[in-house]
Amino acid sequence: MNPQPDYSAAYVVLRTSDGDEGHSLVFTIGRGNDVQVAAIQALEPLVVGLPVDPTLADLGGFARRISGDSQFRWLGPDKGVIAMASGAIVNAAWDLRARRENKPLWRLLAEMSPEQIVDLVDFRYLRDALTPAEALEILRADGRDVRQQRLLDSGYPAYTTTPGWLGYDDEKLARLSKEAVADGFGMIKLKVGGDLDDDRRRLRIAREAVGPDLPIAVDANQVWGVGEAIEWMTALAPHGPYWIEEPTSPDDVLGHARIREAVTPIKVATGEHGANPVLFKQLLQAQAVDVVQIDATRVGGINDNVAILLLAAKFGVPVCPHAGGVGLCEMVQHLAMFDYVAVSGTQADRRIEYVDHLHEHFVDPVVVRGGRYLTPTAPGAGARMHASSLAQFTYPDGPAWA
Amino acid sequence: MNPQPDYSAAYVVLRTSDGDEGHSLVFTIGRGNDVQVAAIQALEPLVVGLPVDPTLADLGGFARRISGDSQFRWLGPDKGVIAMASGAIVNAAWDLRARRENKPLWRLLAEMSPEQIVDLVDFRYLRDALTPAEALEILRADGRDVRQQRLLDSGYPAYTTTPGWLGYDDEKLARLSKEAVADGFGMIKLKVGGDLDDDRRRLRIAREAVGPDLPIAVDANQVWGVGEAIEWMTALAPHGPYWIEEPTSPDDVLGHARIREAVTPIKVATGEHGANPVLFKQLLQAQAVDVVQIDATRVGGINDNVAILLLAAKFGVPVCPHAGGVGLCEMVQHLAMFDYVAVSGTQADRRIEYVDHLHEHFVDPVVVRGGRYLTPTAPGAGARMHASSLAQFTYPDGPAWA
Repeated sequence: MNPQPDYSAAYVVLRTSDGDEGHSLVFTIGRGNDVQVAAIQALEPLVVGLPVDPTLADLGGFARRISGDSQFRWLGPDKGVIAMASGAIVNAAWDLRARRENKPLWRLLAEMSPEQIVDLVDFRYLRDALTPAEALEILRADGRDVRQQRLLDSGYPAYTTTPGWLGYDDEKLARLSKEAVADGFGMIKLKVGGDLDDDRRRLRIAREAVGPDLPIAVDANQVWGVGEAIEWMTALAPHGPYWIEEPTSPDDVLGHARIREAVTPIKVATGEHGANPVLFKQLLQAQAVDVVQIDATRVGGINDNVAILLLAAKFGVPVCPHAGGVGLCEMVQHLAMFDYVAVSGTQADRRIEYVDHLHEHFVDPVVVRGGRYLTPTAPGAGARMHASSLAQFTYPDGPAWA
Repeated sequence: MNPQPDYSAAYVVLRTSDGDEGHSLVFTIGRGNDVQVAAIQALEPLVVGLPVDPTLADLGGFARRISGDSQFRWLGPDKGVIAMASGAIVNAAWDLRARRENKPLWRLLAEMSPEQIVDLVDFRYLRDALTPAEALEILRADGRDVRQQRLLDSGYPAYTTTPGWLGYDDEKLARLSKEAVADGFGMIKLKVGGDLDDDRRRLRIAREAVGPDLPIAVDANQVWGVGEAIEWMTALAPHGPYWIEEPTSPDDVLGHARIREAVTPIKVATGEHGANPVLFKQLLQAQAVDVVQIDATRVGGINDNVAILLLAAKFGVPVCPHAGGVGLCEMVQHLAMFDYVAVSGTQADRRIEYVDHLHEHFVDPVVVRGGRYLTPTAPGAGARMHASSLAQFTYPDGPAWA
């Protein structure tokens, strides 16, 4: 589906008059990155000149104002380029606040009161599935301190997509699959959907490499219709894939529900292209997914992702964040860790995706050891890149483009 | 929901080397129009330099290539700014083809063979609800010639939103409602959702003005959550509103289904902000709507709207296009008329929205007489504006901006 990605990002910096900065980005795969930049620039007048302290003290109100501007909202609503632009600005504001409070984002969120967390969420379209009172109930559970300490001690489980890209030859697939096991990863993922015989062979090779017990997820990147997804996964079922990710259009709630009904016990996972919490609400209401995948830069920012985490907790469905791309690992780990400490309270059936790519450009790159994300302690929300990387790769004037 | 719209458009012109032009636009309500322009410009390299004849002869393939570019698609997929940009370019190509064939768009479409029409549609995500064979079956129905003649003789029913804007005083509401009846409109529509007592009073006034039998639709512009929509419409039910339009988030298929279940016999209408055919497919599968509302510039162009018309016909749900804005009446009338001649084959329970606003800027403005759209016979797809209007209002250099 995405044959030639050219990993890119629209990069945002919020600057205060006293010199603090909040950074964020929207991950894109090449063409269109400048459209994303244009959308972020168009939102500047909603942000520039705001008083810093009251804005950062009320990031629920800030997010609602940015994403709720009626004229910009017309271009969505709540989806696509304009929603991702709002999300990037909201996320940059969170980075700014986390740095000013000298906390990593996950800890900033996890140390807020249940009332403050609930106030981050726009419940307008969510109340039929989750009321503010139910969200408070979820957030009031005991044990935050214990979980926070456990998180600092032992991190959060990861899985790796490194072995499974289409285009790797069989030898490389086998070698990288074995390395993943040796590195301690609890799951690997293979791309599927190109050719059924290839998929069967690659699953056999990966299974042989990782042994009988390690879960192997597969990812179709939206390439199928509903019927085709059911047929293909029925054909792959004897190979015991753990989940099928993005079997069809990310918008097709009812389609995912039909696919899930047909392919159980293979789990159904989706969400990296889910446009907004209303989509996730319906995936949960329709029992369409076994695994909710959040993305750091797709929805309208951290506030929307807090809403999605609360919805998933209400429905008892695990969240396994999508990562990879540019900086997604660095950003999304904070959401999974906040979920563990303050929302779902568990790491069971939960893993953050990991791809070993481009981390060298980030000031606080993720550290994965023994198949687990080590818990970040540096302040911020994770997206800040090295000034040298920004200088090198900024389009069109960076030397990399010469 | 849209308190201060500043009616705007991102305007597209495709030019051939022999001097022909195809025009189209994306309607916006102000801020963000330049983002829409940036997205259209970003797609230029996919279009400029293509050979004209083969491109226009295969607008199915053209639309799939434009909306299917994997890097741009990442910014949706199939939604928001990037999908509307694809749609505008596709629509401009249709305008170009219609002009070169010297036909109004509705006739160009209605005179294509069933096979040619089916080839316009991307069935990838639709087959579970509508197969190409089923679409062919729908399109092979007899009587196109008779209906085409009937359409030319007597046009297509309209309804008017002119009386019902929030902010008009009671006297103006009564006067405009009476004028609507005198003008022959078969339905009027009022905006609701600001204040329940106001809505009750305004519905009473309108009912008194139009008499006991004329349907009065109401439109909430997405302002409610699901529960709120049910409560509000239950309170308005004694006033017998004909349909409730956009009661909640346009993405909430399951929410609309719940609302419909609760408020029947009041009909549920939505779609002007429906992002793509997958959303419409689900609204129909879930029996969530009584009325499908298509928009000329929201989805990925005429091809997507052909898909939606076919889906609606398969499920036996009437399509009543959204119009108003900038040029939407001019554009969407062609789709409703094509639907009548070649798809649903009926005008029963169908009306095109009409707002008497900004038509003077269009080369072929709609003509509404006796509550009916007169059938356009000028070649093209309807969106071409006068050169003088373009010169006057082009941002930022047009004199209107001085």
